[in-house]
Amino acid sequence: MPEPANHLHFFKFMTLATSDSLHAIRGAFLDFIGDPFHGDEFSSVRYLPDGLMILGEGKILALDSYEALQNSYSHIPTTAYPDKLIMPGFIDTHIHYPQYEIIAAYGEQLLSWLNKYIFPTEQKFSHKAYAQKIASLFFDELLRHGTTTALVFATVHPESVDAFFEEAEQRKMRMISGKVLMDRNAPEYLRDTPESAYEESKKLIQKWHKKGRLLYAITPRFAPTCSNKQLHLAGKLLQEFPDVYLHTHLSENVKEIEWVAELFPESTGYLDVYDRAGLVGERSVFAHGIHLTNAEFRRLSETRATIAFCPTSNLFLGSGLFKLSQAKSPDYPVKVGLGTDVGAGTSFSILHTAHEAYKVVQLQGESLSAFKGLFLATLGGAKALLLEDKIGNFDVGKEADLIVLDPQATPVMATRTQKFPAVSLEDLAQKLFGMMMLGDDRAIHAVYIAGELAHCRTS
Amino acid sequence: MPEPANHLHFFKFMTLATSDSLHAIRGAFLDFIGDPFHGDEFSSVRYLPDGLMILGEGKILALDSYEALQNSYSHIPTTAYPDKLIMPGFIDTHIHYPQYEIIAAYGEQLLSWLNKYIFPTEQKFSHKAYAQKIASLFFDELLRHGTTTALVFATVHPESVDAFFEEAEQRKMRMISGKVLMDRNAPEYLRDTPESAYEESKKLIQKWHKKGRLLYAITPRFAPTCSNKQLHLAGKLLQEFPDVYLHTHLSENVKEIEWVAELFPESTGYLDVYDRAGLVGERSVFAHGIHLTNAEFRRLSETRATIAFCPTSNLFLGSGLFKLSQAKSPDYPVKVGLGTDVGAGTSFSILHTAHEAYKVVQLQGESLSAFKGLFLATLGGAKALLLEDKIGNFDVGKEADLIVLDPQATPVMATRTQKFPAVSLEDLAQKLFGMMMLGDDRAIHAVYIAGELAHCRTS
Repeated sequence: MPEPANHLHFFKFMTLATSDSLHAIRGAFLDFIGDPFHGDEFSSVRYLPDGLMILGEGKILALDSYEALQNSYSHIPTTAYPDKLIMPGFIDTHIHYPQYEIIAAYGEQLLSWLNKYIFPTEQKFSHKAYAQKIASLFFDELLRHGTTTALVFATVHPESVDAFFEEAEQRKMRMISGKVLMDRNAPEYLRDTPESAYEESKKLIQKWHKKGRLLYAITPRFAPTCSNKQLHLAGKLLQEFPDVYLHTHLSENVKEIEWVAELFPESTGYLDVYDRAGLVGERSVFAHGIHLTNAEFRRLSETRATIAFCPTSNLFLGSGLFKLSQAKSPDYPVKVGLGTDVGAGTSFSILHTAHEAYKVVQLQGESLSAFKGLFLATLGGAKALLLEDKIGNFDVGKEADLIVLDPQATPVMATRTQKFPAVSLEDLAQKLFGMMMLGDDRAIHAVYIAGELAHCRTS
Repeated sequence: MPEPANHLHFFKFMTLATSDSLHAIRGAFLDFIGDPFHGDEFSSVRYLPDGLMILGEGKILALDSYEALQNSYSHIPTTAYPDKLIMPGFIDTHIHYPQYEIIAAYGEQLLSWLNKYIFPTEQKFSHKAYAQKIASLFFDELLRHGTTTALVFATVHPESVDAFFEEAEQRKMRMISGKVLMDRNAPEYLRDTPESAYEESKKLIQKWHKKGRLLYAITPRFAPTCSNKQLHLAGKLLQEFPDVYLHTHLSENVKEIEWVAELFPESTGYLDVYDRAGLVGERSVFAHGIHLTNAEFRRLSETRATIAFCPTSNLFLGSGLFKLSQAKSPDYPVKVGLGTDVGAGTSFSILHTAHEAYKVVQLQGESLSAFKGLFLATLGGAKALLLEDKIGNFDVGKEADLIVLDPQATPVMATRTQKFPAVSLEDLAQKLFGMMMLGDDRAIHAVYIAGELAHCRTS
């Protein structure tokens, strides 16, 4: 069993939180204190079969076994979740909120799918009221599926970004988004210009970046819809605001890659198009990366950039199989998070996304353990987004975004994951794998955002 | 709109069913009257946005638009399902009931997965009481997921077959199963002999085949666990009982195929092993067939044998991608049904199995429409099992196994498939595809077995 959480920091926080505002949660706690892809898997896991967590001011103030903490906190109101499993909230490193309503649209691969379904849908987001309506539904779904932080595409319209951040702010959620940049190869009604994209993004950064828990991402759609000038102005903006993110797509589909080679003949490859514009760095998140060359993997590694691995989307659009083992190789490792990529992704569930990641990896003759899958869903995602000082596990002082998983959420799960909490890490690994392969939104019993209950499953 | 159901046959059935025992269902009805893989897809579809079905004596006595039938049947008790979609029950052409509890077991491909997880689990089925307990849970799950007919592996123990058929008989379900044959390359505790396998199977055929709605399948596990002698005695049995089925596995995994080549050096290929034993015919159902050669596709076509396509299993075990378009080619077509293959399959849902079939097909650069997917799930499965005279669509006189689908079963589905019933086949095709990609057991609102309500969703 790994060492229990250090709760010495608690006393420091007591000055911030009066005893009245404290709240405790008792149950089985699981989080990650290391990377299970490197070294002994079990040593990356922190598991407390009967733990107690003290929350206050939206933060984690202490976590240890119930036995160790019960005397010190016996006066604090406590919510107990017997037979459940408490984990850090899931982190979705790539999703499009305006595509909520067009999820699972039939019969196309990437480029024709964009033209036939996505562009006409995104047009509606020039109306802020419409964007607000969908943003609200979208956040409801994130919570129902246990996602507490996401890196999110809006549309080309600044209104879509305002609607998104207003909803996120109201819900006190740690969210990252940005206006889409696209000045060519898209319908007139969705195009901006290099200059308007620069100016509008700058205003939105000044308005939203670091406002409460909100963060901004400069968001070129992908190379084919951005002129070289637009990409370079995005790079200029990134230099002016070095702590915002860069969020775009990369090497998803073979035809897309051929098109990029035609559009940017001076570049040595798809990643190089972004690199020349100054868009590849440790705050850059590239969705997909299915068909990356070895040289591109190496370049992503040396720049500490991130790939968002989106298996349900990659299978749905027939894009291909992401080489997770290559990204996780010790030679030149690349940071990886999981992304649902709704609306090309077929589920809002990061649990189900880990399920399909397993299948993508199995088709390549390897496996993905539950610990590895759920690391990617939590601490791995936080590291990918450089947010591991704030979220991703239960270290004392971190923001209290947590989810309560129900191992018996369906009849099949109840049979497969009997006798919970697990008594050993071997036992937990098997049961957790069952949850990862069989779980969906029903496995999310409750969600806490910044220490407060934000969702509880009703049916 | 295709022609409505012919209800002229109704009068013939009135002699069987007194008016007292009649029951009517009103709603939107969808079934197939042809194969959407051949010719115009829409002409294979029968869709009644507001239909009325008359049930009696477990059969379909009439189906037409509500308008056409309402006057004749105004005195009959009617259940209405507004905003739902009524379809024939789903048909699962390959599943293992004893693997219910070991669904989603971690980290192996076929051969090691069998040894590590499956064989120890199947040992428990020598105890009939245990087999009865799991059989009951298994049928509950089938119904919750809308499956009304299945071709099912039991274990090597005759007790497992008795337990299965007793449960099926009680539920009045049309089910096919049989004792597994395996006399080598398996633990001692799971082995029979060629002679005991022959004798026990014969007794079980005499006991269960055609008893009520039950049918028997001679069930060699797969070539590696059966001696040539056992396969040939199975062939002899099949000759003696030409209307029972043959159910086994074929060409699932590359290592398995290499092993078969070693074990049967005289054979020209995997299918040939079965062929030489007289096991390949129109009542033969082979699960998987991932790595079939062109010659094997051709041989399956000319013998009118069936492949059970099990996409969730094929991805879970990393077996590979079934070539559906080759099986459906007009040159030498092979009958195909969908199989969940639980416990290697990851879901009991045939709806979700069609979802993953779409992804398998997309990875090969093609698509699978909702009409094609749901044809495989219903009439296609019935044809694969030579049961299209009894089940699979709503032709008058067929057995009344039907499911009531809820297009608004989850919040995402409610957004994606708004405004139901659909008003045209184009509209229906898109909404149905959303249901296929987003639906699970929650999309099954109710299930009727032989005209009687057998399941209704409660949460």
